[in-house]
Amino acid sequence: MLHGKVNAVVGQAGGPTVVINQSLYGVIQEAQKHAHIGKLLGALHGVRGIINEQFYDLYRQPENMLDLVAQTPASALGATRDRPDREYCERIFNAFRKHDVRYFFYIGGNDSAETANIVNTIAEDAKYELRVFHIPKTIDNDLLVTDHCPGYGSAAKFVASAFIGDNLDNRALQGVKINILMGRSAGFLTAASILARQRPDDGPHLVYLPERPFEIEKFVSDVEEVFDRFGRALVAVSEGIVDDQGRPWTEKVSVLKQENITQDAFGNVQLSAGAGSLADYLAGTLRNRCKKVKRVRADSFGYLQRCFPGCYSEIDAWEARLVGQMAVIYSMDEGADGSVALVRLPSTTYTVGTKLIGLKEVAPDKPPTTKQMSEEYINQAGNNVLNSFREYVSPLVGDLPKVGWFEQIAQM
Amino acid sequence: MLHGKVNAVVGQAGGPTVVINQSLYGVIQEAQKHAHIGKLLGALHGVRGIINEQFYDLYRQPENMLDLVAQTPASALGATRDRPDREYCERIFNAFRKHDVRYFFYIGGNDSAETANIVNTIAEDAKYELRVFHIPKTIDNDLLVTDHCPGYGSAAKFVASAFIGDNLDNRALQGVKINILMGRSAGFLTAASILARQRPDDGPHLVYLPERPFEIEKFVSDVEEVFDRFGRALVAVSEGIVDDQGRPWTEKVSVLKQENITQDAFGNVQLSAGAGSLADYLAGTLRNRCKKVKRVRADSFGYLQRCFPGCYSEIDAWEARLVGQMAVIYSMDEGADGSVALVRLPSTTYTVGTKLIGLKEVAPDKPPTTKQMSEEYINQAGNNVLNSFREYVSPLVGDLPKVGWFEQIAQM
Repeated sequence: MLHGKVNAVVGQAGGPTVVINQSLYGVIQEAQKHAHIGKLLGALHGVRGIINEQFYDLYRQPENMLDLVAQTPASALGATRDRPDREYCERIFNAFRKHDVRYFFYIGGNDSAETANIVNTIAEDAKYELRVFHIPKTIDNDLLVTDHCPGYGSAAKFVASAFIGDNLDNRALQGVKINILMGRSAGFLTAASILARQRPDDGPHLVYLPERPFEIEKFVSDVEEVFDRFGRALVAVSEGIVDDQGRPWTEKVSVLKQENITQDAFGNVQLSAGAGSLADYLAGTLRNRCKKVKRVRADSFGYLQRCFPGCYSEIDAWEARLVGQMAVIYSMDEGADGSVALVRLPSTTYTVGTKLIGLKEVAPDKPPTTKQMSEEYINQAGNNVLNSFREYVSPLVGDLPKVGWFEQIAQM
Repeated sequence: MLHGKVNAVVGQAGGPTVVINQSLYGVIQEAQKHAHIGKLLGALHGVRGIINEQFYDLYRQPENMLDLVAQTPASALGATRDRPDREYCERIFNAFRKHDVRYFFYIGGNDSAETANIVNTIAEDAKYELRVFHIPKTIDNDLLVTDHCPGYGSAAKFVASAFIGDNLDNRALQGVKINILMGRSAGFLTAASILARQRPDDGPHLVYLPERPFEIEKFVSDVEEVFDRFGRALVAVSEGIVDDQGRPWTEKVSVLKQENITQDAFGNVQLSAGAGSLADYLAGTLRNRCKKVKRVRADSFGYLQRCFPGCYSEIDAWEARLVGQMAVIYSMDEGADGSVALVRLPSTTYTVGTKLIGLKEVAPDKPPTTKQMSEEYINQAGNNVLNSFREYVSPLVGDLPKVGWFEQIAQM
């Protein structure tokens, strides 16, 4: 194996996904095939590991363990929520100069692209040749330009699978069930719940997204209507739903104050915004308002959506590895920098390619800095996702669990 | 296929599991092999389907669909939360007499065993020969006598898998993560989270069960201690935790009142007891009390624990089918009635058998009517589960996802 003189750093940032280590594996695998990268250093906890000079030597990890890491959810290098300012980025740059790092691969969302961009600018100003590559990941699927984000397909598969099971649960026990799903400002993950629909009366029967204002009165009447029709209702709600003023419902619910907890010595405790409280609030409202509905339950799927081992989309895992590999391939071109975007090719079957786009395109200075669900996927009433969305999302998720049922009721 | 003259009814009750349809399949498969059962009728939504005379003809379902039903989570016949009184049971008995039903197989928890027992008594009083069999299921694992309950192993596998992923997530992003788990009065499912521990510093680092009183002061100091040691903490909490007066914490948290929700037209809404609110309450308390902890998150796993398709324990699926088959086998013995219990045989490897026990043994008139975690599995401080519990639970869960990691940090 040829090792050149200059080194590379790879890091992982933000919320993990079940396939983010596939991207890491892609970088390691491809880098080892080429001569332009000397040492490949894995930064512990992203940018924090760089400024603290804490690294894994990624060429000295056994292949069997690398294989296993690739299949392991969450960031094997550790992640960070640090969002570096200019001064922080200068410390990153200084660490790079000290260790002769000339390539920086950063796996993350648009914050990570922004960090990469600032570090790049500092290097340019110092006339230090640094080549910076952003490798996309996010279960929210809200990055600009790219057709979709590695990590989304697997999270969507988890959500669709969970709804398949929960639809059967709701069918068996009846009543109303609400599930709160991740995605602060984009409804892509919540919308993936519609993949659970197989029979005409399967849920989710209602889907509420951050893209449309959520009104509690409308919600109550929507649920009643579904309940009258099917004798049950399964509802998907994004944790990012907002009111008509754009105020998040988690915030509205989080101003609840604690009373009458006699065992509690701390006085009134303000609850922090939480999807769990939103779930209980919506369930409580239905219980109070819809007397004919006997059972109302609500769950929030939480972190399970991004880190449940074993539930991943094969195409998502493949693409996550691909974008890691492509970042290294692009780094062989003189002067190239940027973010690796996935491009859906015009084809009768699902086919995907990559292209290198500017870091500024993923992390622009001005809004919109993230992507939302296209209007064409949302129904007029703003309480459901149209079947056209299936064409977009199905190939990213792949096969879902099949379910069996009994067809007819015997005449007695 | 020989069909006799008398008929059988099979029903499913209570909260579903991912393997409850295996038990149903076991009944159908075995009944078709023997001549003593004429028609096998599947009651729609348990006892409710019996009094409403709504049945599936289970001998007229294609084998391919039966195979698929067996692998499908939740109750394919539909379930019910109805807990019949004497009058309701008389209506059940009348439906049986009308349709010449002489065998009743009821898949459920101890409420179902009790129902089965009452119907049996009514039949005896009427000198009508009815043979009643209870087939156990519950993810809570709290039925008396049986070594463990079908459905528990798979739910335990879901919980352990989820903690494996969440432990990696917590390792990557640090901070404190709390997960609320099902099990109203028994900690078995929460305790299964310890199977996620592979490396010495893996979570869950703390485990709180309904078997020991939960004190908020102690909880705060426990978490701080773990955080000081590992720089992070992963905590498993049963939704059934109680205070030193035996009052459930979900109730204590549910008296929270709603304020300042200006868009809300209904005045103060009382939140109902919910695991989601408990999650947010515990997280909020830590945020207020432990200033050194920057990130605190809490999730409640909810119904995913009992109906997530594809995540099941193979041995659990096998045993769930076995107890269904054995109920039919036992029904061939003159005069036999009862509940099918699993017996762990004295052996160096895990080996299981069944025995028929009295319905009253599973559903006694006097407390304790359910089982709790044995003292020997809980640590002195009441905030953790001992490794001895692994010996009990591991064989029920089977293989868990393997995870990869990087061993050492490079010297720079």
